[in-house]
Amino acid sequence: MTDTEPADCAFCAIIEGRATANIIQIWHDAIAIRPRRGGVNDSHVLVIPRTHVADAGTDPAVTAATMARAAELAAQRPASNIIANVGAAAGQTVMHLHLHVITRTKGDGIQLPWTAQQEAERAAWGVTSRG
Amino acid sequence: MTDTEPADCAFCAIIEGRATANIIQIWHDAIAIRPRRGGVNDSHVLVIPRTHVADAGTDPAVTAATMARAAELAAQRPASNIIANVGAAAGQTVMHLHLHVITRTKGDGIQLPWTAQQEAERAAWGVTSRG
Repeated sequence: MTDTEPADCAFCAIIEGRATANIIQIWHDAIAIRPRRGGVNDSHVLVIPRTHVADAGTDPAVTAATMARAAELAAQRPASNIIANVGAAAGQTVMHLHLHVITRTKGDGIQLPWTAQQEAERAAWGVTSRG
Repeated sequence: MTDTEPADCAFCAIIEGRATANIIQIWHDAIAIRPRRGGVNDSHVLVIPRTHVADAGTDPAVTAATMARAAELAAQRPASNIIANVGAAAGQTVMHLHLHVITRTKGDGIQLPWTAQQEAERAAWGVTSRG
């Protein structure tokens, strides 16, 4: 543990083997785990850098590297959302950067901020058959 | 335009100056623009790589670099969500990678997939005063 890794950080505890988790994948710079409560659906994983940084705004390089790992997972899924909650007011509950990756299927009813306006946006960009 | 940049890509058209947009910021590798329809709230921007890649799963390096730019914007905001919709079933409307950055304030009512379970998750991780 370094002085940037608070002793009470739940994710540092998992990375250092002081706490258990359902670990999905391990890389040299990150891990992927299941949320403690099961997540939004069975596909939901958290991609977490081994380096303790508070959130996605703290260190762009660490955030970028973590995003590359989330992108690897997204590439294995037919469709997904990758979401960073930056700060408590944005829904961040553990103050160690983590990216949520959630597989999506058409009509699954999962809410995002713009669900209601999506069709209007699609039309505004002149998008037709491309998706 | 290269053969990886489709002639009908709305974001390539903006990047190449063939279409207008409300451009917020320009970097050597990315731009940030306002959504055509105004977005979820006045803070909503799209961070778009100059390189045409279809989505966040296409090229982890491009995705990571774009995430670093989104992280710069997040660092300037008190709280925010950074969201990639990967594929049409995940809400992606323009098939050129873009990351949504949305400023959040407590009680703003913006929906994310886990809004309802957030408190349970917080408790499950043993988070008390940190979040």
